[in-house]
Order: sequence, then C-alpha cells, then structure tokens
Amino acid sequence: MSDAPRLSLADLAARIARNPFNVWLGAQIESASVTGVCVRVPWRDELYGNASVKAIHGGVLGCLIDTCGSYSVIAQTGETVLTVDYRVDLHRSTGGKALLARGEIVKHGRTLSVVDVRVVDADGELVASGRVVVMNVARKP
Amino acid sequence: MSDAPRLSLADLAARIARNPFNVWLGAQIESASVTGVCVRVPWRDELYGNASVKAIHGGVLGCLIDTCGSYSVIAQTGETVLTVDYRVDLHRSTGGKALLARGEIVKHGRTLSVVDVRVVDADGELVASGRVVVMNVARKP
Amino acid sequence: MSDAPRLSLADLAARIARNPFNVWLGAQIESASVTGVCVRVPWRDELYGNASVKAIHGGVLGCLIDTCGSYSVIAQTGETVLTVDYRVDLHRSTGGKALLARGEIVKHGRTLSVVDVRVVDADGELVASGRVVVMNVARKP
Amino acid sequence: MSDAPRLSLADLAARIARNPFNVWLGAQIESASVTGVCVRVPWRDELYGNASVKAIHGGVLGCLIDTCGSYSVIAQTGETVLTVDYRVDLHRSTGGKALLARGEIVKHGRTLSVVDVRVVDADGELVASGRVVVMNVARKP
Repeated sequence: MSDAPRLSLADLAARIARNPFNVWLGAQIESASVTGVCVRVPWRDELYGNASVKAIHGGVLGCLIDTCGSYSVIAQTGETVLTVDYRVDLHRSTGGKALLARGEIVKHGRTLSVVDVRVVDADGELVASGRVVVMNVARKP
Repeated sequence: MSDAPRLSLADLAARIARNPFNVWLGAQIESASVTGVCVRVPWRDELYGNASVKAIHGGVLGCLIDTCGSYSVIAQTGETVLTVDYRVDLHRSTGGKALLARGEIVKHGRTLSVVDVRVVDADGELVASGRVVVMNVARKP
Repeated sequence: MSDAPRLSLADLAARIARNPFNVWLGAQIESASVTGVCVRVPWRDELYGNASVKAIHGGVLGCLIDTCGSYSVIAQTGETVLTVDYRVDLHRSTGGKALLARGEIVKHGRTLSVVDVRVVDADGELVASGRVVVMNVARKP
Repeated sequence: MSDAPRLSLADLAARIARNPFNVWLGAQIESASVTGVCVRVPWRDELYGNASVKAIHGGVLGCLIDTCGSYSVIAQTGETVLTVDYRVDLHRSTGGKALLARGEIVKHGRTLSVVDVRVVDADGELVASGRVVVMNVARKP
C-alpha cells in the first residue's frame, strides 16, 4: 500500500451519507490511513439496550464494528465491499457517551480482507472489539 | 428443561418494551419455546445500509441475532443476561421486507449459554445466521 | 442440489488419505449426504490437553470441526476448498472416547460456503460445536 | 497488572509439559510478558493438511491459537483456564516451517479473558490470526 488511502475523508463522508442506517446513527469517519479508519458515533438514547441500567444494546456495537471494518477497506480500494462475517466481543457496559471505533487491517487480500476493530467510549474505556471479513467487489457505476 | 419456557409471551413483551433500541427497531417476540424464541422486525427505511442497491445494513442483522439469542435464554430463566460475544454470517442481500429470527439453544449452562440464530426475510429466504454467547446473571430487583 | 453428494464415501476416503494430519488423527468419513458429512475420530492419548483431568485439547476439537466443515463441501463439489475462518465453542470436557462430528451446510454459495458442525463423544454428549467458512476453488489437476 | 507475569518461563515450561497434545506438537513458550506469551511450534510432516500442495492443516493453526491464548492468561494468574470459544482466520498457506504465535490480552476480566493471537511462520509471513475467550478457574490442588 502507498502512504495514503485511495479515498479522502471527503470521499468517505460522501459515501457514508448514502448509507441510511449510518446516517441515523450519526456515524462519521474521523480519520483514515492505510491501516484503517476511525468512526465516531454520538450518543442518542435509542441506543440503550437496557434503559434501567443505562447500557447500550450490544447489537449497536456490532453495527459500529461492521461499519468501521467495511470502510477501513473501502478507504483503500475506492470500491465497495460485502460483509462476509463478523465477530463482536463485549468487554464493558457503557451508555450515554459517544463511541469511537478504530479499524486495523490485518490482511488485505484480492478477494477477502480481514479487519480488527476496537471500540472505546468517550472516557477512553474499551467497550467492545471484534473482527470483520469483507469481500471486495467492483463498484457498480 | 420443562415443556414451557419460564416467561410467557406477555412477560417477554413487557421485557422487550423496556429496551429502547428494540423498541426503535419494532422487534417483537412472536413465539417462545424451551428451545428458543422467534423475533420479528418490520421493515423501516433507516435499516438500509446501501440505499442505491436497496440492501439492509449488516449490523442490523447482528442486532437481531444478538436480541434473539439473548431473549431465547431470558425466556428460560426469567433472569437477565449479558452478551459475551456473537458471530454473524451474512448469506444474502435483502431489503424492504420484514425479518424473522429464530433462536435455537445449543447449550444452556449455569454460567454461559450458547444460542444459534437464523434470520429469514418475509420471502422465507435465509439472509443471515449466527451464534450468541451470553452470561446468565441474576436479575437486579 | 441433487439427492446424493457428488463424491462417494470411497472417493472421500481416498481424499482424506492424502491429508497427513487427518491420517494421524485417524479421521474417517462415516457418512455423506447433500447436507454434509459425518467424521469419526478414534481416541488416542496424545489428544489430551490436560492429562491430569483427562480432558481433550480444545484445539483438537477445532481440527475436527474444520475437517468436517471442509469435507461437507468437498463432498458436494468434488473440487477443493480453502478454509477462510472458523469458530469453535467448547461445551463440555471429554476424554478417552471416540468423537463424531456432524456437518450441516447452512449456505452453499458459488464462492463461499458456510457449514455448522456439532461434535459429540461416544456417549452422545455434545462436547463442541462451531462453524466453518470455506472458499470453493477449482481442483488442480 | 504488574511488570512481570506471575509465572516464569520455567513455570510455564513445566505446565505445558503436562499437556500431551502440546508435547506432541513440540509447542514451547519462548517468552512471556504481562500482555501475553509467544509459543513456538517446530515443523513436523504430520502437520500437513494437504501433502500435494504442502499446506498445513488449518486446524493445527487453531490448536496453536488456542494454546497461545490460554497460556497468555495462565501466565498472569498462575491458575488454570477453560477455553470458552475461539475464532481462527487463515490468511496464507504455509508448510515445512516453524510457526510462532504471539498472544495479546485484549481484556483480562475476573471471569472471562479475551486474547488476540497472530501466527507467523519462520519467514515472518502472517499465516493466521484469531481470538480466544477463556474462563478463569481456580487450579485444583
């Protein structure tokens, strides 16, 4: 890989703006490098999975991991991807705080790419981590 | 296990109604047995991950798998659970259709339980499947 | 799929006989259908992971899951596969007994196939389960 | 955590010597720190999964990942662990070369710990990676 990803932050912002679920989440790509991207999600109360203990729904953390893993690869190729599978481990309860996911490409292959993702909350606590496998597909014009 | 889960559908409806993200999704538990529960999610356009190809966001399918796996165990115990980890495999693109997740408890242990989940769309097509590991915890009074 | 897998048990036996690790394990394909294969592994004491508590090494159960998932697909295609990823959940300690893995194809795609596998010991107890994702590749002549 | 793991390399060597499958593999713990251990496995021809293309059996890489993840936690606690689940991603074919697995503890909890593992071959190529979840259990005297 070269020293900059193929897509700029403006390119990536335009891409993610066409993704309705990520728009609802408010997901924004904060930075991008040849090793992956960082995605920020602000808090909104619909993200609670358990309102009485003020804990985020674990599925939302998976959404963020899938998004961060996918865009980590899209940033490099400018093409699109299909998620093949992903794994999510939940490490600590959080809620009421913005979330930041950081992707790290483990293997960027011709057909498949594998990305590790760690999610911290606004206090810097590791709340979840996981791995996404995507298939690289040429973008429809 | 006995021949009926500990919680009734009314109990489960009351539980899921306190889960803001699932309320937003419109997730409802349609049936419950000693082997797991079925969860239905109606379509809403914010679930698209890619509006131009009309495909659901893969993270939403993970939300449904996490929810179905968790409630499959909650239905048996009446207690609560913490998701430890989950895996999602995406098999086919879908969009614009209701989704139905069916959980099947693989192992119901004292500390940890493992549940397989398959998700079909309203056409009956298998769109995703996965596995959820939950930790059983006594419910706070 | 038709009502029989492409490869016969004799074909599969010839294939697995060229796999040195499976020969060492003594893995044999006991049955094959269009939904997957069953693989049997006899006990040998080198499989212990912890000799003092007489428990099998968890990695060996993963070997069996990977093998069963891979041959479940090979049986259908007659081609070869590359394992992309697999997941293993360990449900119960076992040791000193033969093991039987049963594969069930969840999704048989053109490029990727997904197979669920359950492993029981000779007492019929579920000791492990998991999932294998393989990439279908044309067999080198 | 302090600046050294609880168990020394000699302690760890004594532990792994009571593990028959790891003895068969020839697995040795080369280094240990508060973030995990490195495990080395020399080559032996029984590790081939496909002798004609000289490729290691993917299950063997999972054995090494499970072992490295487990001992990464054992080194810290001096207790024992039970593997709950693990995931393996295969990145590149290898064969005929020693393997080195490096564990990195992602989360060390009271009940459960999560460890990422990367495996390189003697040429330094990344051949596999994965994640192990273990349950910490007090060691039987």
